Amino acid sequence: MMEERLNRDRAIKKWIFEISQNIKNEQKSNLKVEQKTTPNDLVTNMDKWVEKELIERIRRGYKNDRIVGEEGFGDTVSEMHGTVWLVDPIDGTLNFVLQNENFALMIAVYEEGMPVQSYIYDVPLDRLYTAIKDIGVTCNEQPIEPPSNRSLGEGLLATNSSILTKDRYKDIRKVTRKSLGLRLIGSAGLETVEVAKGSIVAYIATNLKPWDVAPGILFMEELGLKATQFNNEPINLLDNNDIVFAVPKAHKEIMAIIN
Amino acid sequence: MMEERLNRDRAIKKWIFEISQNIKNEQKSNLKVEQKTTPNDLVTNMDKWVEKELIERIRRGYKNDRIVGEEGFGDTVSEMHGTVWLVDPIDGTLNFVLQNENFALMIAVYEEGMPVQSYIYDVPLDRLYTAIKDIGVTCNEQPIEPPSNRSLGEGLLATNSSILTKDRYKDIRKVTRKSLGLRLIGSAGLETVEVAKGSIVAYIATNLKPWDVAPGILFMEELGLKATQFNNEPINLLDNNDIVFAVPKAHKEIMAIIN
Repeated sequence: MMEERLNRDRAIKKWIFEISQNIKNEQKSNLKVEQKTTPNDLVTNMDKWVEKELIERIRRGYKNDRIVGEEGFGDTVSEMHGTVWLVDPIDGTLNFVLQNENFALMIAVYEEGMPVQSYIYDVPLDRLYTAIKDIGVTCNEQPIEPPSNRSLGEGLLATNSSILTKDRYKDIRKVTRKSLGLRLIGSAGLETVEVAKGSIVAYIATNLKPWDVAPGILFMEELGLKATQFNNEPINLLDNNDIVFAVPKAHKEIMAIIN
Repeated sequence: MMEERLNRDRAIKKWIFEISQNIKNEQKSNLKVEQKTTPNDLVTNMDKWVEKELIERIRRGYKNDRIVGEEGFGDTVSEMHGTVWLVDPIDGTLNFVLQNENFALMIAVYEEGMPVQSYIYDVPLDRLYTAIKDIGVTCNEQPIEPPSNRSLGEGLLATNSSILTKDRYKDIRKVTRKSLGLRLIGSAGLETVEVAKGSIVAYIATNLKPWDVAPGILFMEELGLKATQFNNEPINLLDNNDIVFAVPKAHKEIMAIIN
C-alpha cells in the first residue's frame, strides 16, 4: 500500500511540474476571466485548462478512481468509498488574476474517506508542500517539523475576508481580538501551509468548498494539529464547511469562544 | 543634484546587500526578543544591530545629514531641513520573529522635507524595491509601471489589524466592506509595495510611525498614486499618522466614506 502511494506521489509531482510550467508561461497573456457567483468568485480559462489536464492524467493512470474538481470536469461524488481525488486547479483565483502571486495548485487523495496524500503547490514561489500519511510533511522535499503549540495570544491568526466584514460573523470575530495580529493571504491552501509551518497559530474560514479544505486535513493530522468544523465536528468533504485549522492550544481556545 | 542622488543610490544598495546577508545568516540563531510597548510591539537584537550598522555607514559617508531610526540610535529631529534619513531596520518584526518571512529593511531620504529616494527590501524573497524622484520605481532594477486606476469594488484592500479588531475604528471598517477582499501582510513596507505593484488598490493603516510611512510617499508620488492621512492632509513625518496609500479612484472613495 505504501509502495502504491509512493508511486502515485512520483506521478503527481511530475504532473504538477509539467502543468505549472504552463501557468507560469501563459498567465500574463490571453487570460479570460469570468464571474461565477459574485464579483470575487472568478474562474479563468487557466483554471479550466489546469483542471482538464490534471483530470486527464488521473483518468489515464487510475481509471477506477473518482475525481472531484472545482471547475466541474470531474465526477459527481456523493460518498467517499474507494479512492477519491480532490483537485483545485488554482486556489486563490482572485489573487492569480489581480496579483499574479499568492495562489496554489492543490491535489488531495482519499482512500475510503481517509486522507493519504496532499499537495499544495505555491506556483509563483515554486514551493511544493506535501503531506503523506505516516510519512510527514515537506516543503520542496525538506521535512517540516510540528510547530510550537502556542496559544492565540502568542501567535498570528488568518481568516477569510467574510469573517471580518459580514454582520453575521460578529460572534466569530471575537476570536480575532485575542491574537497578536491578523494575516490574510486569500488562498485557503497557502493559509493551511502557514499553520503547518507555524507562521500562524490558526486559520479560520467560512463556507469553504471540499477542494479548498481537502489537502489541509492531512497536513494537520501529520503534524499533530487540529482540523475541525466550527462546531468541533470532523470536516465533511461532501459539503461546504466552516473550518478551523490550528495548533491544539489555539484550537481549544477558539472552540471555547465560538461555541 | 541627480548625480549626488545616483551616487547615494549606489552606496545605499551596497549597504543593504551587505547588511541583509547577516540578517539571512543569523536570523535563526541567537535571536533575543524584547517587548517594547505591547505583546505585538517587539524588538530584537537584530533590529538594533541592523540600525546601528546602517547609521554608522550613513554617518561615515554623509556627516552633515540627520537620521531618524526606529530603534533610537539616530538623531532627535523636530523639523525636516537639510537632508534627513529615515531608517526602519526590520519592518514587520512580529513576522520576522514568528514567520521568518514577510519583513523588510527600509530607508528613505528626504531633502528639505521632500522625498527623493526610497528603498524597501523584502529580505527573505530578495526583492529590492526602489523609488527615485523623477526616475521612477523599480523591483530588482526592473521598472514598475503605474497600476490600473481601479475602484475599491474592483480590487483588494490591505489594512492593519487594529482597524479590523478595535471598536474605535468601527466607522473606518465601512471601507473594508466595499472591496473585493482583504489582504493583510503585517509589514507597512510590503503593503506599500503591493499598492505600487497594483496587487491591491489601497492600504489603510492607523498610528504608523514616521519610518513606517516615509519610503511609501515617494513610491506613491512616482507612480501617480495618493499618499495622505485619513483627513486627506499630507502625511506628517514628525508625528504618527493614520494613512491611506491608494490608486486615485479608490482613494477618492475611501475619503468619501471616512470623512
